[in-house]
Amino acid sequence: MAKTRVGILNVTGYAGIELARLLTGHPNIELVSVTGRSAAGQKIGQVFPHMAALDLIIQSELSDIDFVFSALPHHESADQLIPFVNRGTKVIDVSADFRLSDPTLYEEWYGFKHPAPELLKKAIYGLPELHRTEIQQSNLVANPGCYPTASILALAPALNAGIVSGNVIVDAKSGLSGAGRSLKLTGHFCEADEDVTAYAITSHRHQPEILQELSCLDRALAGLTFTPHLVPMTRGILATCYASVNLSMTAADAMQIYKDFYRDEPFVRVTAEPPHTKHTAGTNMCLIHVNVDQRSNMLIAVAAIDNLIKGAAGQAVQNMNLMLGFPEDTGLSKIAQFP
Amino acid sequence: MAKTRVGILNVTGYAGIELARLLTGHPNIELVSVTGRSAAGQKIGQVFPHMAALDLIIQSELSDIDFVFSALPHHESADQLIPFVNRGTKVIDVSADFRLSDPTLYEEWYGFKHPAPELLKKAIYGLPELHRTEIQQSNLVANPGCYPTASILALAPALNAGIVSGNVIVDAKSGLSGAGRSLKLTGHFCEADEDVTAYAITSHRHQPEILQELSCLDRALAGLTFTPHLVPMTRGILATCYASVNLSMTAADAMQIYKDFYRDEPFVRVTAEPPHTKHTAGTNMCLIHVNVDQRSNMLIAVAAIDNLIKGAAGQAVQNMNLMLGFPEDTGLSKIAQFP
Amino acid sequence: MAKTRVGILNVTGYAGIELARLLTGHPNIELVSVTGRSAAGQKIGQVFPHMAALDLIIQSELSDIDFVFSALPHHESADQLIPFVNRGTKVIDVSADFRLSDPTLYEEWYGFKHPAPELLKKAIYGLPELHRTEIQQSNLVANPGCYPTASILALAPALNAGIVSGNVIVDAKSGLSGAGRSLKLTGHFCEADEDVTAYAITSHRHQPEILQELSCLDRALAGLTFTPHLVPMTRGILATCYASVNLSMTAADAMQIYKDFYRDEPFVRVTAEPPHTKHTAGTNMCLIHVNVDQRSNMLIAVAAIDNLIKGAAGQAVQNMNLMLGFPEDTGLSKIAQFP
Amino acid sequence: MAKTRVGILNVTGYAGIELARLLTGHPNIELVSVTGRSAAGQKIGQVFPHMAALDLIIQSELSDIDFVFSALPHHESADQLIPFVNRGTKVIDVSADFRLSDPTLYEEWYGFKHPAPELLKKAIYGLPELHRTEIQQSNLVANPGCYPTASILALAPALNAGIVSGNVIVDAKSGLSGAGRSLKLTGHFCEADEDVTAYAITSHRHQPEILQELSCLDRALAGLTFTPHLVPMTRGILATCYASVNLSMTAADAMQIYKDFYRDEPFVRVTAEPPHTKHTAGTNMCLIHVNVDQRSNMLIAVAAIDNLIKGAAGQAVQNMNLMLGFPEDTGLSKIAQFP
Repeated sequence: MAKTRVGILNVTGYAGIELARLLTGHPNIELVSVTGRSAAGQKIGQVFPHMAALDLIIQSELSDIDFVFSALPHHESADQLIPFVNRGTKVIDVSADFRLSDPTLYEEWYGFKHPAPELLKKAIYGLPELHRTEIQQSNLVANPGCYPTASILALAPALNAGIVSGNVIVDAKSGLSGAGRSLKLTGHFCEADEDVTAYAITSHRHQPEILQELSCLDRALAGLTFTPHLVPMTRGILATCYASVNLSMTAADAMQIYKDFYRDEPFVRVTAEPPHTKHTAGTNMCLIHVNVDQRSNMLIAVAAIDNLIKGAAGQAVQNMNLMLGFPEDTGLSKIAQFP
Repeated sequence: MAKTRVGILNVTGYAGIELARLLTGHPNIELVSVTGRSAAGQKIGQVFPHMAALDLIIQSELSDIDFVFSALPHHESADQLIPFVNRGTKVIDVSADFRLSDPTLYEEWYGFKHPAPELLKKAIYGLPELHRTEIQQSNLVANPGCYPTASILALAPALNAGIVSGNVIVDAKSGLSGAGRSLKLTGHFCEADEDVTAYAITSHRHQPEILQELSCLDRALAGLTFTPHLVPMTRGILATCYASVNLSMTAADAMQIYKDFYRDEPFVRVTAEPPHTKHTAGTNMCLIHVNVDQRSNMLIAVAAIDNLIKGAAGQAVQNMNLMLGFPEDTGLSKIAQFP
Repeated sequence: MAKTRVGILNVTGYAGIELARLLTGHPNIELVSVTGRSAAGQKIGQVFPHMAALDLIIQSELSDIDFVFSALPHHESADQLIPFVNRGTKVIDVSADFRLSDPTLYEEWYGFKHPAPELLKKAIYGLPELHRTEIQQSNLVANPGCYPTASILALAPALNAGIVSGNVIVDAKSGLSGAGRSLKLTGHFCEADEDVTAYAITSHRHQPEILQELSCLDRALAGLTFTPHLVPMTRGILATCYASVNLSMTAADAMQIYKDFYRDEPFVRVTAEPPHTKHTAGTNMCLIHVNVDQRSNMLIAVAAIDNLIKGAAGQAVQNMNLMLGFPEDTGLSKIAQFP
Repeated sequence: MAKTRVGILNVTGYAGIELARLLTGHPNIELVSVTGRSAAGQKIGQVFPHMAALDLIIQSELSDIDFVFSALPHHESADQLIPFVNRGTKVIDVSADFRLSDPTLYEEWYGFKHPAPELLKKAIYGLPELHRTEIQQSNLVANPGCYPTASILALAPALNAGIVSGNVIVDAKSGLSGAGRSLKLTGHFCEADEDVTAYAITSHRHQPEILQELSCLDRALAGLTFTPHLVPMTRGILATCYASVNLSMTAADAMQIYKDFYRDEPFVRVTAEPPHTKHTAGTNMCLIHVNVDQRSNMLIAVAAIDNLIKGAAGQAVQNMNLMLGFPEDTGLSKIAQFP
C-alpha cells in the first residue's frame, strides 16, 4: 500500500522537530516535506544535529503532500492552513487557532480576530479520549495544548460522573521545553536551573481551553482557576487538580470511577501511586492518580505527561492515526526512556 | 561582652550543617560544641569537606554550652532536650516535637506518645511574624517546618483580615534537600532529575502543623488540603495557596492587605511579580505574591523560601536572636547568591 | 520464522532495564525471561513503573531461552554464565568478566581469581567497529564498558593510522546513571547536582580495558592516563582524548583519516563540530570530532555516547544482531529524543 | 575611618552583580555608584529581584568614587578605564583588556588593536598567589579569567618546582554562568540541560593568558593545550591538568610540594581527595588535588573554584583588599553554601 505523504509546517521548534522524529519512525506514512522560516534551504541536520540521520531539506513551502501538520505560531497557522483545508487536504493544527470553538473567546485571549471563523465549526478538538469518533471523521483537528491535555484528562472522569462541584483548581508544573526554543531570559539555564516559579497567574491562554472542555463534561461547572509553574527540567507536565466532592467518597471509590472511565484507552493508565513525569518521558502515555482528602472532602487528581509527546507531537500522531484509519498506537511508544 | 556559647545536637544532616555554617558567621555567639551519632570523633571537615575551615570535632554529647539547637529526628529530639530545658538552658528544637500543641495530634501523626507533654505548654511556635513577643520571652522554641513556614506566611494576611473562607488548598513544591541526607531511591539523582511528582497526598505530617497555625488566625477555617511535590533542585520551596474570597476584591486590594500585614517585617517582602525560589537561595527571606482570580473569586498567594534557611536553620537563628536580645537580622542574609 | 527466545540475568539495574526496553521493541526476538535477585516474584512494572506496559514477572532463574544477556555484577556474572556457555547457548556478558583477555590483569584490577580463565580465550571483545567478524562467529561476547566504548572509538582511527605516539590521555565525563541504581552519597541528588568532580584518578578499572584495545591497534603505545569525572546529568559520556601527533598535520587531515576509518559504520558519525552528549540520548550513536592543536602538535578527539545505550544495552543489542545474523541496526535508534 | 567609595562599571552581568553582592557585605567600603547600559535609571532590584534589599539606582556613568571595578566587555572596558587610571583612581579590570602583557598577542586573540598599550606595562596580573606584592603596590590590576585562575593555580607548584616538562594539557569543565547572561541557544535550558560538550577547541582566548603565566613560572614550558567544556550546572569550574613528570615521583611527593607552595595562602587548600566544585560554591576558595600516574609518569592536578567568585568577583575583592591595605580575606567567605 502506498504510504501517505506527510508534511510539517514549521519543523524548527521543539514540537515540530519532535513530530518529525516520531513520523520518521512511523511505518505507514512518509515524511516528505517540511518548512521552516529562517532555516529554509538548510538540511534538517544543520539546524538539529540530533536529526542528521534524516536526509531532508527544509523548504519555504510544502510540496506534494496528502496530509499536513502545522507547528506554526497561532494566527500564522490558521492563515497557512486555510488553503489546505479548502482543497480537502487533511490537517492537524498543533497551534491554538482551532481549539476554542467560540471566535470571540479567541479574540479576547489571543488578541486577533479569528482568521477563519467559518472553519471553527468543522474543527474537532483532538483529545481522542473525549472525541475519538469525531476525530476519525474529521478533516481538521485542533491538537490540544500541553497543559489542557494533562488537566482535562485528570478531571474528566470526575466531572463526567458528576461527583464534584464548585470551582476547580488546576496547579500545573511544566518543564522548560513547553516555553519553546526561542530565546528568553526565563529560559536561560542560569535563571531557570534550581528555580521554581508560578507565572501568568489568572492570565494563561490555556485557561479558556481547559474550561471549554470541562464545561462540555459538566455544564454546571462553576469556574476554573489555572496556575502554571516552571520547574527546572526539560520535558514533562504534572497537573495537580482539586475539586470538592459532592458526597462522601473514598479514594477507592474515585479510583474505580477513573479506572472504568479509561478502561480501554491505549494511552491512559490509572496508577495506585502519584505518577512521575519521568515515567512518561518519550511516551504518549498519560498517568493519572486520584485521591480524596476526607478531612475536607476534596478530590485530588494528578496527571503526568511528556509535554512534547502526549502534550503535542505524540497526540498529533495519535490523531493522524485515527484520521487515516491506522491502529491508534502506530508509531507511538508506551515505555519511557528511563532513567 | 562574652559571646553566648552555643551547641548543636546532630550537626550531620542538612539542617544541622547549615545551622553550623550560619552560626560560624554570627558575631555574637560562639559555636563551641556539636554532636553527631555515627560521626563522633571526626573533624567536621571530614564529614563535610565544604566546612573544612571550621576546626571543630564532632562529639557524642554537648559540653559547656549556654544555648542548644537540636537538629535531631523527632522523638529523639525531645528526649535529648528535656534535661536541657529542665535545667533552664534556652533551647530551639528544629525537629517537629514541640510544634503541635495538642499531644494527641502528635501521637496520631507521629506514631509516638509525646515524650514530654508537660513541656508542650511552655513551647512557643517559632514563627516570628506571628509570635515574636512570645518567642522573645521563651526558653523553648519549636522551629517551624519548611512547608509550614512558606504556607502560613502565604496565607496569614488573608486569614487575619477575614477575606477568605471555606477550604484552603496548599500546593507546595520543594527541592530535594528537604528530604534530608539519608539515602533513598527517591533522592537518587537519576530518579529525581528531570522529574516532578506529588507525594504523601492527604498524609503529610506538616498538614496538622499548618492547620494549627491557620486556625489560630481564623477560627472558622473549614479545612486544609496540603499536597507536597518534589522538583529537581536542591534548595527552595514554593507554596501556591488557594482560598475563596468572601467578597468582590481585586488583586490590588489583596496586595495592600499583604503589604500592610508585613510592613515592618525584616524577612518578608511582598512582590509585584510571582517570586522565584532562586531569589531566596542563601537568604532568610520569604517572598510573597498575592493575586485574585476574579472569574472564580479565588485568592492565589505564592510564597518562596530557601527551605534550609527561612525553612529551617535561618529561622532558628532568627529565633535565637529574639530569645537572646540580639538585633533580629544578625548573621542572616537578605541578598541571594544568584544565579 | 520463530523468534529467538531471549533472557536477561539481573534486569533490575539501569543497564538491565534499558536492555529490556530495547528488546521489547526488537522485531526478531522475544524477551521471555528475566531475573533479579531481591525482586523475584514481582511484576517488572512494580519495580520499574515506566515498564508497566511489559507484562513479565521477574524470576529467580532463567527458563526456556535460546540467548542470554547478563547484566549481573562482575564475578557473579561469569559464575552464572559458565553453564550457559558450556551447553552452547549464545551469551553476551554486559559485566566486565570477559573483557580483559589476560586473567592476571583481571585478578589485579578486580580482586578475584578469574572464575573461568579457559573461557577467556573464546570470548570476543564486543566492539563491532573493531571486531565485527569475530563477533558474528562468537558464542561468548564481552560487551565493552561505557568509558572504553567512547575512548576507544575516539582514538582508534589515529592509532590505527600511526599518526600519534607517546602517552595517551583520556579525560572522560559521565552522567550519574553510569554509577548504577544502588544508593551512595555521591549519587544523592543534593550532592551530585550543581557539581563536577574527578574520581578514581589513576585507579579506574576501565583503564586496563581501554589500554588493551588501544594496544591492539598500536603495539608501540607508551601509556594511558585515564581520568573519569561525574557531571550532573543522568545519561551521556563525553571522552576528550589527547595524543601527540608524529608529524605536521592539520585538523582537516585528521578528520579525513577519521571519516575514512568510519565510512561504513552504521553507528559512528564524524562531526564537524564538537559533539553534544544530548544529541546521542536514546540512540546507539557515537559522535566523534577530531582536531589538531598545531601550536603543540596535539591531536584532540572527542567522542559522545549515551552510556546506557552505545555504552551498554544498545551495543549489546548490536552485538546480538551480529551474532544472530539480523541487520546490525535492528531495534536500535539513530535519532535522539531531543531536547 | 571613612569608608572607601567604590563604583562598578556594568553591574548588569553575572560578574558585575556578584561583585555588587560581595561589596554590599564588605565592612570597609561603600558601594556608591553602579552603571549599566540599557538598565540606566532603574533600581538595581528591578533588574535583579534578588538584590531588592540594595537601594541603588543604576546610572549611565560613575560619580564620586575612589575606587573602580569594571565588569564591562573587553575593549569597552579599557576605553572607559583609561581616564580613571590617568587621574590616579585605583582600578580593577575584570575584563581581559589588561591581562596579556604583549599587545600583539591581544590583537591576535581579541581582534582589536589594544586601546592603551602604554598602560599594559603598569598593569599587574591579579592572581594574589603569584603576584601579591605587586598587586599591593598597583593602581591597575587585571583580574584573571575564570579558567586561568583554576588552571594556573593547579599547575603553578609543579612548574615552579621544575618537576614537569613537555606539553601541558588543561581539560576544563565550566558551569553555564561563565558564558554570561546574554541570550544564546547554547545557554537555553533545554539545550544545556543533560548535556556536556567541548567548545572552542584550540581557539579559546584564555589559552594565551594561561600560557603567559605558566611561562613565567617555567621558561622552558613547551606548549599548552586548553580545552574548555560546558557542564549542566550554574556555577563552578573544574580544571583537570596533565603534565609529564621529569623523574620518578609519587603522589605523596607531589602533594608535599603543593602543600609547601600554598602553605600560607588564605584561599587555597590542597585536598587529599579530588575536589568538588560544589564545595567551593559561594566562596573564594580554590581546592586543589594532585596525583601522579606512575604507569605513565603523568602528573594530574585538579582545581575547583566558584567561577563567579574566585574566578571573577571574589578575586577582584581579594585584589581590592590588597590594594587598599585591608586584611586579605575581608568580606570573603571560605565556607560554601552546601548543598
